[in-house]
Amino acid sequence: MNIVILAAGMGKRMRSKLPKVLQPLAGRPLLSHVIATARQLSPGKLIVVIGHGGDAVREAVSGEDILFAEQAQQLGTGHAVQQAASQLDESVPTLVLYGDVPLTRLETLQGLLDAAGNDKLGVLTVDLDNPTGYGRIVRDAAGNVQRIVEQKDANEAELAIREINTGIIVAPTRALKGWLGGLKNQNAQGEYYLTDVIACAVADGVSVVTTQPAFAWEPNGVNDKAQLAELERDYQRNAARALLAAGVTLIDPARFDVRGEITCGTDVSIDVNCVFEGKVTIGDGATIGANCIIRNTTIGAGTRIEAFSHLDGAVVGSDAVIGPYARLRPGADLADDVHIGNFVEVKNASMAKGSKANHLAYVGDSTVGARVNIGAGTITCNYDGANKHRTIIEDDVFIGSDTQLVAPVTVRRGTTIAAGTTVWKDTPEDALVLNGKTQEAKTGYVRPRKQKQ
Amino acid sequence: MNIVILAAGMGKRMRSKLPKVLQPLAGRPLLSHVIATARQLSPGKLIVVIGHGGDAVREAVSGEDILFAEQAQQLGTGHAVQQAASQLDESVPTLVLYGDVPLTRLETLQGLLDAAGNDKLGVLTVDLDNPTGYGRIVRDAAGNVQRIVEQKDANEAELAIREINTGIIVAPTRALKGWLGGLKNQNAQGEYYLTDVIACAVADGVSVVTTQPAFAWEPNGVNDKAQLAELERDYQRNAARALLAAGVTLIDPARFDVRGEITCGTDVSIDVNCVFEGKVTIGDGATIGANCIIRNTTIGAGTRIEAFSHLDGAVVGSDAVIGPYARLRPGADLADDVHIGNFVEVKNASMAKGSKANHLAYVGDSTVGARVNIGAGTITCNYDGANKHRTIIEDDVFIGSDTQLVAPVTVRRGTTIAAGTTVWKDTPEDALVLNGKTQEAKTGYVRPRKQKQ
Amino acid sequence: MNIVILAAGMGKRMRSKLPKVLQPLAGRPLLSHVIATARQLSPGKLIVVIGHGGDAVREAVSGEDILFAEQAQQLGTGHAVQQAASQLDESVPTLVLYGDVPLTRLETLQGLLDAAGNDKLGVLTVDLDNPTGYGRIVRDAAGNVQRIVEQKDANEAELAIREINTGIIVAPTRALKGWLGGLKNQNAQGEYYLTDVIACAVADGVSVVTTQPAFAWEPNGVNDKAQLAELERDYQRNAARALLAAGVTLIDPARFDVRGEITCGTDVSIDVNCVFEGKVTIGDGATIGANCIIRNTTIGAGTRIEAFSHLDGAVVGSDAVIGPYARLRPGADLADDVHIGNFVEVKNASMAKGSKANHLAYVGDSTVGARVNIGAGTITCNYDGANKHRTIIEDDVFIGSDTQLVAPVTVRRGTTIAAGTTVWKDTPEDALVLNGKTQEAKTGYVRPRKQKQ
Repeated sequence: MNIVILAAGMGKRMRSKLPKVLQPLAGRPLLSHVIATARQLSPGKLIVVIGHGGDAVREAVSGEDILFAEQAQQLGTGHAVQQAASQLDESVPTLVLYGDVPLTRLETLQGLLDAAGNDKLGVLTVDLDNPTGYGRIVRDAAGNVQRIVEQKDANEAELAIREINTGIIVAPTRALKGWLGGLKNQNAQGEYYLTDVIACAVADGVSVVTTQPAFAWEPNGVNDKAQLAELERDYQRNAARALLAAGVTLIDPARFDVRGEITCGTDVSIDVNCVFEGKVTIGDGATIGANCIIRNTTIGAGTRIEAFSHLDGAVVGSDAVIGPYARLRPGADLADDVHIGNFVEVKNASMAKGSKANHLAYVGDSTVGARVNIGAGTITCNYDGANKHRTIIEDDVFIGSDTQLVAPVTVRRGTTIAAGTTVWKDTPEDALVLNGKTQEAKTGYVRPRKQKQ
Repeated sequence: MNIVILAAGMGKRMRSKLPKVLQPLAGRPLLSHVIATARQLSPGKLIVVIGHGGDAVREAVSGEDILFAEQAQQLGTGHAVQQAASQLDESVPTLVLYGDVPLTRLETLQGLLDAAGNDKLGVLTVDLDNPTGYGRIVRDAAGNVQRIVEQKDANEAELAIREINTGIIVAPTRALKGWLGGLKNQNAQGEYYLTDVIACAVADGVSVVTTQPAFAWEPNGVNDKAQLAELERDYQRNAARALLAAGVTLIDPARFDVRGEITCGTDVSIDVNCVFEGKVTIGDGATIGANCIIRNTTIGAGTRIEAFSHLDGAVVGSDAVIGPYARLRPGADLADDVHIGNFVEVKNASMAKGSKANHLAYVGDSTVGARVNIGAGTITCNYDGANKHRTIIEDDVFIGSDTQLVAPVTVRRGTTIAAGTTVWKDTPEDALVLNGKTQEAKTGYVRPRKQKQ
Repeated sequence: MNIVILAAGMGKRMRSKLPKVLQPLAGRPLLSHVIATARQLSPGKLIVVIGHGGDAVREAVSGEDILFAEQAQQLGTGHAVQQAASQLDESVPTLVLYGDVPLTRLETLQGLLDAAGNDKLGVLTVDLDNPTGYGRIVRDAAGNVQRIVEQKDANEAELAIREINTGIIVAPTRALKGWLGGLKNQNAQGEYYLTDVIACAVADGVSVVTTQPAFAWEPNGVNDKAQLAELERDYQRNAARALLAAGVTLIDPARFDVRGEITCGTDVSIDVNCVFEGKVTIGDGATIGANCIIRNTTIGAGTRIEAFSHLDGAVVGSDAVIGPYARLRPGADLADDVHIGNFVEVKNASMAKGSKANHLAYVGDSTVGARVNIGAGTITCNYDGANKHRTIIEDDVFIGSDTQLVAPVTVRRGTTIAAGTTVWKDTPEDALVLNGKTQEAKTGYVRPRKQKQ
């Protein structure tokens, strides 16, 4: 089939410099959600109609499979589809979607396509408790769709109709082109409405079929930031529901955000107020504490991520303990049984099995062996003001507290670094390394007194 | 007009030592919200009737424009207003508000005042799905208010009335005084009810007009902590709605708290679970990460505040990157392009353009120039146990990791401090500064063994 | 009475390796909630019927007062109770509860027991807006329970009945045994239903009485993770309601989690998104900032716990200030007026009155006197790679920033440690202690340049 996605609107009510269809929902532009669903339908042609902010839209969603059509003036939805008409394959039907209606599910669209087949006009409708403002679906006694009547043109009986038009339609393409060509703009807005093709179909004797989505939020569009926030919550509730159904324990589904793709093993538990971004994988029996932010990270089975941890671009092995207040930055590659404690930052560094950095430390640009203990306050001095250098810590090393490792430097296997040591030369194996120091005590010292202000 | 605010009640059900009207909502006493709205009406007289905890109330809300009246015994709302009677200007109407009804909007009160004019009695009413317990508004066939009937005195038809009295009234002052003087306390509570003036007005042939608020929560009062929590949420939802309407992106409006005044430029995005206190200003395109707490702070355009940051009394320039886990304390004054990273505390310190403190550091009582790099673990030792001293770091300085800067001290332009250095003397420009150190390795060292417990 | 708790089900829809009744709610297994309530009824016999995961269940909830009965095959609720029959005391009634129905309140069960007495069959029922799927309570014209009709067997009138059977019953034990013995499994599932004893009772002329719970969530069971999450929220809302009623200020009751027991004095205020675990006691006037996690901790009157703090196994005195970002670990014992600031970890350490560690520090295995100031970046080096040793800091000591205290070591009364000192020997009183250092400046230093990549 052909898919046409209307994405030319300005979205003035968003009060933003960003084109409406590029406003983010769950971390991605609204339009990207629509395109992702559209692609799953494997359309022969996928045409995005752009207008306001067209260059930005073109750049944000470009892909080999995406064609663009320009709608230079916004003269209505019918006019918008018409801009794509020349690119449509007439041998297959055309599905019309909207760049600001991001959450219509694949199953819903597939159901509409199946119902319409190749020669019927399919309309996605929904029943609303309060249909005010929407076009009502008028049916005859036999239940056949007759036309769509807009709010302002409806009589009392029609106003009572709760089934409304979502705007999502699928139509036989050759007929659709004909109908589009005959649209009139004799209305208050002076616009060409796609809606009017339904009356054309009825007039032409083309059957009109309707289907409805499983969830009320599916056909919801976004016109302002309040609606965007609502739809964000719909999205997140749905994401939470899917994880719960898969057996994940969410302590509060209303305080859970996924902006990307999360994959969980069995018996994963996620505490309140966590945010997941990008591609996150969590192994069997792993637990995520409250208030964690986890992005593009893989977490092994049985690992505990404690509260207030911030993981980005990290790999964490099994049975590890991370946090609270651990910061793993891109390139943190932690093996099984690694412990990273509070106020510890790890960046572009690997740590082998069983190594620990439990308190206030910075481990960056480092290769750390197995069973290494990195004491509190340890800093890898990886940056000389211009370049970054690497610290190598071999197996079974013990780094005393408040040590500075001035890279490039290697601490060899089994060595012990005394507390408070500056290490700028490679160390031998199994040595005790320290800076020569004296400890002096000047007795009878009188501490400064509070100065008068 | 005169405004009388009743604020004498004990609020026993709050189970608190604090007088009810001083219980905080959105960070301010309930009564302060009422006074703030009242002041916008520019009353000739603004009289707060105090009783329980009167001294505390007097102290909490004093202002040149506020008069107080004492209600020594709590004998009912009518009695309370009577205590203010002698201070009322009879030439203008009197509006009665309640210190525990904090969220009635200015527009709502103005509408009531407009409807009542100078010679009518205005009553703010509201329709409730469940009016049980409230005084019902009884009208005649023509819709004119006849009287208010209390729950216990109402017949079946009256109990079915859903329009209730909020207690907020405006009345011609001279007439009001007369009605108050004639109130009886022949009721179960033995109290003088302000409500009874409505019957007085009808009896005197004074027209009674009613208006209703736009939002259901506006006339809600607070009697216990559950109601206080509910009204806090009403307040916050309304604050969120206002920001959304102004184009701010809130990822979850239900996890957003403002306790003060927040001003946002265009394309500001605020992630989940943030709290704003005092006066906060956020520039165009700035983003606030999840779980931030921001108080009395100005944030420049394009700046990113990362998750878990805590800003108080800070100024942050444009295109800066702050956090995650950054702590900016009062007097932190950061120029454009400054970076403050994880586990870094900045207090009473300025940092000029492009300077960075990216990891585990304390920068206090300092003046930091431009393009300075403050290494991980750096501490400004500003306190000698009695007095605080200042650290000056000039432009283009590089402070190696784990450096202590013992104030007062100046690090001159272009100087490099080696990692792990204690700096207690001023340094020359463009120097390499370090403590003389040896690095010793005692080979064949045997580490302590685990003692038997 | 006898209490039988059915806990043999598999809970396949939980999609977990953990038996259903061991799934945690508010931090404890579902079954533990039921047992805790059951124990408050002081049953003569408390019998848990186990099956799937029986060994795990037995281990999780064992106690001297708990008897177990095994249901090797899951042949229905009637069959389950029958497994316990031989252990029942026939002289008292038997109450049947469910291991996956955790929140039925003591008052509700007591009301049912009181209504049933010794010779009636008591059934806990509830009215549902949508009773679909549940067994309806069929009554005669006089209101007497006639039988329970299952969904699939109900006629149209019966389907309209909104009163349903919760499954919780109390019955005269001897009669119950007889009824159980006569149950048939002639139904679609081929199971023996406990429900069928109601018809037996009616047939035998035993009166059937019903009572209803005060809250709709009380009889809710858990079959999947979505229901578990819902019931978790019901639990937490109820916990919040109880605290609000006691006068605690909760800034957002919907962002508040208790997993254990929390006891608050008067005028305690708890900000958004806090989690309490184990046994927590909070003194009068104490305030808990946003996003705190507090476990098994006692907090004194007037103390402020600032945002992002993590307390576990700590004791904090009065008028202390803790956080933001403070980490108190087990054995932290802080006296009155102690200040613990950002990025400070305290573990197994006491601090006497008025002592402070305000910035980036690790205080572990230490005894700290009164009025001690622990500077930023201070580390107690308590671990030598094998054993932990103790640091003693006496009264009035001033520890300069970035000091390492290599335990075992004692810093005597009144001593001042210079910034950046490694202390490995005990110090005298009132001394100034430092490592001998030179500060060298190599002028004309040229910093490394960025290497070409």
